[in-house]
Amino acid sequence: MFRCHLLIVPLLFLSQVRCEVFTALADLQELLNTEAVLIHSLENYIRAEELKIDLLKRYADIYNKQHNKATEDVESYVANPLNAYTLVKRMTTDWQEVESLITTDVSKDYMANISYAKENMKFPTDEDLNGAAAAVIRLQDTYRLDTASLARGELNGVKYSSELTAADCFELGRQSYNNGDFYHTLLWMREADERLSREQNKTVDKGEILEYLAFSTYKEGRAKRMVQMACKSDEADCNRDSANITLLSHASARNINLALDLTNKLLEMVPTHERAKGNKVYYEEEIQKGSYKKKGDDETDDIITNEGVTIVRKYIVLSLQWETVW
Amino acid sequence: MFRCHLLIVPLLFLSQVRCEVFTALADLQELLNTEAVLIHSLENYIRAEELKIDLLKRYADIYNKQHNKATEDVESYVANPLNAYTLVKRMTTDWQEVESLITTDVSKDYMANISYAKENMKFPTDEDLNGAAAAVIRLQDTYRLDTASLARGELNGVKYSSELTAADCFELGRQSYNNGDFYHTLLWMREADERLSREQNKTVDKGEILEYLAFSTYKEGRAKRMVQMACKSDEADCNRDSANITLLSHASARNINLALDLTNKLLEMVPTHERAKGNKVYYEEEIQKGSYKKKGDDETDDIITNEGVTIVRKYIVLSLQWETVW
Repeated sequence: MFRCHLLIVPLLFLSQVRCEVFTALADLQELLNTEAVLIHSLENYIRAEELKIDLLKRYADIYNKQHNKATEDVESYVANPLNAYTLVKRMTTDWQEVESLITTDVSKDYMANISYAKENMKFPTDEDLNGAAAAVIRLQDTYRLDTASLARGELNGVKYSSELTAADCFELGRQSYNNGDFYHTLLWMREADERLSREQNKTVDKGEILEYLAFSTYKEGRAKRMVQMACKSDEADCNRDSANITLLSHASARNINLALDLTNKLLEMVPTHERAKGNKVYYEEEIQKGSYKKKGDDETDDIITNEGVTIVRKYIVLSLQWETVW
Repeated sequence: MFRCHLLIVPLLFLSQVRCEVFTALADLQELLNTEAVLIHSLENYIRAEELKIDLLKRYADIYNKQHNKATEDVESYVANPLNAYTLVKRMTTDWQEVESLITTDVSKDYMANISYAKENMKFPTDEDLNGAAAAVIRLQDTYRLDTASLARGELNGVKYSSELTAADCFELGRQSYNNGDFYHTLLWMREADERLSREQNKTVDKGEILEYLAFSTYKEGRAKRMVQMACKSDEADCNRDSANITLLSHASARNINLALDLTNKLLEMVPTHERAKGNKVYYEEEIQKGSYKKKGDDETDDIITNEGVTIVRKYIVLSLQWETVW
């Protein structure tokens, strides 16, 4: 596995951890060498496929010209032995070549090159991606960076890197979701949605964003509900002010309604979306009952600890702030 | 099998065999319907492959832009957590999509359509092609048509059909070869060679033409040799004039020398051509010995009948005429 745990060290602390960071930087520099090989293989593959397509286009052109000529006057065309011969030839030897070209797997050699590079050069894993995304999230938290500015590659108004695409933002949201961090999931999925609406060449599917947004909104609502329940109990270390408990209750109700709205939006786009259909029924039932059953959580979700409450509280403050701009 | 035996009826005899020809014409008209389906499938396949390639080009473009930016100043690029994240993402989730696109077999659906059309619509076989080619050769013989004019689609100076490509002429030569008709093989391979030299988008491989030319020249030499031997014998019904026998002997020697020249020409182009290497050795041995062993003939080749001699004589007259313009 490629070591990227040191990526969590933000740029500004570089001098303090110089020796350790150099190890990570060396790893990243090696990744660039692997990337160069991948790009080279990809470009060669594209060229090979284009040659194949150009040849097939030439065939299609000949076929079309001859076929159009034939259809101008079918009887006199086929009555001519020379035309009859070329027609039969087009559909036997020529067509065999066309079929042979169509079924030629151009990718084989290039995929072999790619596999060789992946096996023999430095190559990152999904864990490395999770670590690299976590480093960005930590940078954001540490310097309280605005999501939109960070997505533009800006740190405190200074441009440090390229803009992120909608897909880059989506992946930061997805990694946060995998880490159980629904607050950052929502921030980055929202940014992905914003960027997607401005992208000419769409880099991610809006349906996927909506699905993550809906389910994370619901999960965040569950977190608020857990805090509300903890505040009612004697053991929980929280402020038991009844106004605050009511606020939490309203906020969690808003979340499930918002999750339902987002799911309906997704179903408008993809009416056959099976998971969305199931979720819609579930959210509607929950709203009717006024209580939230376990849905898609692991078993630890219902255990509330003091630490849990503290984390959940952070979600509430930040998510309320987020909801105001939604 | 598609019935194309009636293709041998030339255009000018159309009125005499009207009822029979209609059956063949109906078959050919049906072939045009199948061809329309094939062209449609081919064009749709090309469009699908182009979409795939366009998407991969977009990926290659993003990869190149980011990679070039990284290589401008590697250390500061990778030290930025946002760049480190996008680099790792490019090589994990993004690259998985690139690989998935590369290995997507676009052809499957279109090949299924094509197979369905071939099984359920009229489709010609290799025998039909042989019949269609034989019809052209018979037309040529019946009306003593010049090969070059016929290849231009002209019958007695009038343009009746499209020009043939080098590949169309090659196939007429190849079909003649399969029918044991080396005289027409030589005529059409020569025409294929002529046309190939003028073609911008080559439709056939020159090496293949040279191989057929060399071997047919050799086979024709064998035919002359057989006539020479028959003329020497008591049983053969031929003119035993010694001057004619000498002429035949010289002509067959010329053939084997020409076959060797053509094979050398092929070996200059493709020095690794295994069959050509074997043939070169064989021709050289034959020239040294001054006698022609059996090479690539079936067992009937060495049996000389009166009918055989007559056919072979026709070859000689026509091939001598051809050699003068070679």
